[in-house]
Amino acid sequence: MSFEEASLNYHRAKGEFDQNGKTATLLTKPCTTQEELSMAYSPGVAYPCLEIQKESEKAYEYTNKGNLVAVVSDGTAVLGLGDIGPLAGKPVMEGKGVLFKSFANVDAVDIELNTKDTEEIIQIVAAMADSFGGINLEDISAPRCFEIEERLKEICNVPVFHDDQHGTAVITTAGLMNVLEMSGKNVEDLKVVVIGAGAAGIACGKMYKELGVQNITMLDSKGVIHSGRDDLNKYKQQFALDTDDRTLEDAMKGADMVLGLSKADIITPEMVKSMSDTHPIIFACANPNPEIKPPVAKEAREDIIIGTGRSDYANQVNNVLGFPQIFRGALDVRATKITEKMKLAAARALAALAKEEVPAHVKIAHHRETMEFGPEYIIPSPFDRRVLVYVASAVAEAAIEDGVARVKDFDMDAYKIKLQRLADHLDGKI
Amino acid sequence: MSFEEASLNYHRAKGEFDQNGKTATLLTKPCTTQEELSMAYSPGVAYPCLEIQKESEKAYEYTNKGNLVAVVSDGTAVLGLGDIGPLAGKPVMEGKGVLFKSFANVDAVDIELNTKDTEEIIQIVAAMADSFGGINLEDISAPRCFEIEERLKEICNVPVFHDDQHGTAVITTAGLMNVLEMSGKNVEDLKVVVIGAGAAGIACGKMYKELGVQNITMLDSKGVIHSGRDDLNKYKQQFALDTDDRTLEDAMKGADMVLGLSKADIITPEMVKSMSDTHPIIFACANPNPEIKPPVAKEAREDIIIGTGRSDYANQVNNVLGFPQIFRGALDVRATKITEKMKLAAARALAALAKEEVPAHVKIAHHRETMEFGPEYIIPSPFDRRVLVYVASAVAEAAIEDGVARVKDFDMDAYKIKLQRLADHLDGKI
Repeated sequence: MSFEEASLNYHRAKGEFDQNGKTATLLTKPCTTQEELSMAYSPGVAYPCLEIQKESEKAYEYTNKGNLVAVVSDGTAVLGLGDIGPLAGKPVMEGKGVLFKSFANVDAVDIELNTKDTEEIIQIVAAMADSFGGINLEDISAPRCFEIEERLKEICNVPVFHDDQHGTAVITTAGLMNVLEMSGKNVEDLKVVVIGAGAAGIACGKMYKELGVQNITMLDSKGVIHSGRDDLNKYKQQFALDTDDRTLEDAMKGADMVLGLSKADIITPEMVKSMSDTHPIIFACANPNPEIKPPVAKEAREDIIIGTGRSDYANQVNNVLGFPQIFRGALDVRATKITEKMKLAAARALAALAKEEVPAHVKIAHHRETMEFGPEYIIPSPFDRRVLVYVASAVAEAAIEDGVARVKDFDMDAYKIKLQRLADHLDGKI
Repeated sequence: MSFEEASLNYHRAKGEFDQNGKTATLLTKPCTTQEELSMAYSPGVAYPCLEIQKESEKAYEYTNKGNLVAVVSDGTAVLGLGDIGPLAGKPVMEGKGVLFKSFANVDAVDIELNTKDTEEIIQIVAAMADSFGGINLEDISAPRCFEIEERLKEICNVPVFHDDQHGTAVITTAGLMNVLEMSGKNVEDLKVVVIGAGAAGIACGKMYKELGVQNITMLDSKGVIHSGRDDLNKYKQQFALDTDDRTLEDAMKGADMVLGLSKADIITPEMVKSMSDTHPIIFACANPNPEIKPPVAKEAREDIIIGTGRSDYANQVNNVLGFPQIFRGALDVRATKITEKMKLAAARALAALAKEEVPAHVKIAHHRETMEFGPEYIIPSPFDRRVLVYVASAVAEAAIEDGVARVKDFDMDAYKIKLQRLADHLDGKI
């Protein structure tokens, strides 16, 4: 069976009572007797309703809100497929729910919206946000995604997070943090190139600035974004440089880091050679074929540090290292927002974990004998369950420090133990 | 522990890895290896996306859409509690999901909307409808609910069903069908009284008209709805009679059937005595305390046939006899609508099932030794799993006849066998 056939088949019902697709409703309470029925529904259900009416916070105690994230998309920027429409995007949104549950025990509901209107999407999500503990915006095209997220963050009392923007930002920042440490370079001196000025590109650029990077060259489909251009939206304008560089070739000269969010094979061996003398990094995230293949980059120069979106090369930039665990932490302290500090804390946690010894079963999952902190391992593996413990606790801690957590007297030590047990549970050990 | 404490406690997390509330996400496909991950999400998930983009109907094959209903509410008419708001209504909406799953294996997602604006609710539900196989509107106050449902039925390609309206209508119609048969009365000669002109009252009145009833007296909080009143919305106006009756006492004289959707103890023994000479029926649906208690009604006259909303009296009018199985049938033939004919078919199926012998385990569940077709058993029990088989197949058949089913060459005999096996599965037998 080809991979295409296997993938299609994977999405179909298997057993007699199974359904098509990948997610269904799990009942977490028994409901078979008359008595159970009378508590799950009328008349007993009236009591939790009245408690929540008195104090809205009780919704976290009597409903699934506190563990539930809505995955909302308009289907305009689905994977590398582009604007395929909301219904065609549904397998991806359901898949996102699978990742939320598998990696962080977060429940998810996918909602595809049949509108591309910015105002309408904002209005719809705002109206339903209280039903959920958080909103994960997904695969909404730039630049609409920026305004949608920004406005919703202001309106909603629960975290609103556009993973396409921040996921890649958090994970590549983690890698960058580790290479900074290896190289001894100062963040202020770095020259960073970002190829692609869509959702992820803009967000990555912003996060690198948060980290202290001052020299960022961004490119869109027309080349380097410079101050002489008059075709820039306000998000790109923030990255317009006063520079004579016009092409990727120009920009990559002397660059310490290049982030590719573009398309296959646009980085040449010559460009790699022209990068910074020490510790050059490339994150070539185009999927499935990266901007340059790691073997090609390494042939150009041995000391290149390279990560891609693929699992069969080292340093996979996989968003599953971010959003499930970030939401886990945010939900557990009932955060009202996911702040810059929380995202940086997640990156720092990932960077720290990459320095820990890798368990044997993770190496087996990757078919590798050694996985040691260094150029070939600057980002932890998605199969390392400690990601959950490290990231969720760091995010929760940052939320408390940032004053966006609604829980009081949170016991961080107990929480870390709880996360470790959850990680073991997800691993099938408990 | 009091029932209140037990109910609140029921809604809280039990085990270490359990969540608060009653529903969560169930993953229906394995997702633990790299290979599974690459089919559940990128890159393999692109294949079903592309298939759906080519042919939208494929969403039923590769996503959970075909088994998924959204339970949408604005929290304006929750149970008997009234306008408690969307978040406070969430335990009820989650509970509705529990019933969908428990009684018909239908998956459900609850979405509470923080707006009471008719146009906005229509716009929001219309935008998200394609994500689901059907929309169950819930606890939206009258008269807004009528326009919301009517307009959404026109816009959406999936069934939109306001259970508060049609659930009670279907079930009381089933009871009425059986009493008509017992009594030998002609439906055209019946005098029916409906106490309450809200969502359920208006919908019941309409369905009785569909059945052939010509003489319906409806009452709202101001008394009989008659043509001399100038305070009627357009939905009540359809029921305005040219009559001198003004009070419930007036209306009930000679009535063959009274449907109570009002409040406790408003029907007196004298009113019961004044009803039709033979086979008078009362559905006293006020919850938890009916318009007249069955023992009181029976003391007034022995031959009264009475049903209530309660499980501890005979003839329970329980919506769980309707919406799960109606949606089951509608989903299984991919119906675009739930038509009048489908609702009447559901009522007829319930009426037919009440005439079948009741299995022992159903009697045990009701703590009754005998349950035999007759005045004390005109509506089947919610614990009789055959409800699923009877109602879902009847609804599916009617959908095909009505031309609203999208499946081709549906094998009805195979479907009935499949439903029977599902019923056994839900009963824990398979």
